[in-house]
Amino acid sequence: MQKPKWVIEKERARRAAAAETLWLFGLHAVRDALENPARRRLRLVVTRNAADRLGPAIERSGMTPEIADPRKFPAPLDPGSVHQGAALEVLGLNWGSLSEVCLGDAPGRPVVVCLDRVTDPHNVGAILRSAEVFGARAVIAPHRHSAPETGALAKSASGALERQAYLRVPNLGNALEELKRAGFVAIGLAGEAEKDLAPVLAACDDRPLALVLGAEGPGLRERTRGLCDHLARISPAGGFGSLNVSNAAAVALFAAAGQG
Amino acid sequence: MQKPKWVIEKERARRAAAAETLWLFGLHAVRDALENPARRRLRLVVTRNAADRLGPAIERSGMTPEIADPRKFPAPLDPGSVHQGAALEVLGLNWGSLSEVCLGDAPGRPVVVCLDRVTDPHNVGAILRSAEVFGARAVIAPHRHSAPETGALAKSASGALERQAYLRVPNLGNALEELKRAGFVAIGLAGEAEKDLAPVLAACDDRPLALVLGAEGPGLRERTRGLCDHLARISPAGGFGSLNVSNAAAVALFAAAGQG
Repeated sequence: MQKPKWVIEKERARRAAAAETLWLFGLHAVRDALENPARRRLRLVVTRNAADRLGPAIERSGMTPEIADPRKFPAPLDPGSVHQGAALEVLGLNWGSLSEVCLGDAPGRPVVVCLDRVTDPHNVGAILRSAEVFGARAVIAPHRHSAPETGALAKSASGALERQAYLRVPNLGNALEELKRAGFVAIGLAGEAEKDLAPVLAACDDRPLALVLGAEGPGLRERTRGLCDHLARISPAGGFGSLNVSNAAAVALFAAAGQG
Repeated sequence: MQKPKWVIEKERARRAAAAETLWLFGLHAVRDALENPARRRLRLVVTRNAADRLGPAIERSGMTPEIADPRKFPAPLDPGSVHQGAALEVLGLNWGSLSEVCLGDAPGRPVVVCLDRVTDPHNVGAILRSAEVFGARAVIAPHRHSAPETGALAKSASGALERQAYLRVPNLGNALEELKRAGFVAIGLAGEAEKDLAPVLAACDDRPLALVLGAEGPGLRERTRGLCDHLARISPAGGFGSLNVSNAAAVALFAAAGQG
């Protein structure tokens, strides 16, 4: 049977609105978003069981949950999403501008991670976690060809999406230029670089750092590479294999934190 | 319609045989397995396009590929597997015993990674890559409650599964005891540990190292924890968040390699 026109229109409007919101899922991600005062929340769908487990967080959020049948869970999630009976529709977080987030006064040496077309949400989620652990000011990625803020990203980020600035900028090269004008040294991680990361970091003294990583396979794009003050490798010279990009980011953040 | 009994039997036998073999998929994983002389290969299914791209590797392997229609790809892969038109049925690799792999003569300081119930194939794949990059002798995990050698693991390992020893042992605690008797120091990574990793590593001089990581959430099990000579944390004290387990392994391997 053909759907009536008004149903089609309504569905289209709902899809357009949904494109601006995202559905977080899983107990951990939903709890963290319920407890984040900066998060704008629209709709909470939970099973009776999940409602019990999230009780205090739901209460503090002031939201009225929609209780759902676990066998007919109504939130529009991708099939296979391990939602654990909890889904929360939210708006993306507004972290402010590049200069507010990265150049403002805050204790400690400013370090940011720039991602050049890293699109895998699991990798970006893990990078947000490492950025939080090592106190980076922001993870910066272009609007296009990056991992959008989604439920899958939030789940991999294991709460860090609520707390770690993830800035998506119109143009990564322009963002790097702005950071460099403000005194940041840009270090591009590249397997084929001639210098090791440790001496490159040592030569930067305490200057603010932008650690720049490219997608696996293509690596850094030409303009990005050209904007880096240094290229450095993490892998030993002549070794086999290559690090997963989130693993490379974690090692670079650890080394930059001077704990190595 | 009910399937005839002989069809059910045949399918059951095929499933039993398949439980002992695994299907690697994706151009990268299939090419690396075709080029690994230690890999026992059973069946190669490729599209015409993938056959062209894998041409030299197929030729060197001596296999006769089955050319498949991309719209009806016959390899028994999980739905959603990004096979890129290439699938290869193989037997698991036999790396030898713990003592052969970890205690034998080989240049450099022996380092191994022990995984206590880390089951996510993406994390274990990334850890195999890091282990290869930093020259670890083996990644060791128990037979049960670990990530089996699968196509998904091979794909995340991006070739490292062919080159990096991944030993699955009957009992992780017993393996740790054997390593310790042979002179290894066991360092358990734990977010709540009181000591930082760097001074703990410094106190181990050049002794062989077992870096022990637990599953996210539960962490190290009690017996595993008790067998560790030291517990160390990677995250700064009092910080927020926690590292993804593969990121923690990469940082620990990097720090142990003394490059920090």
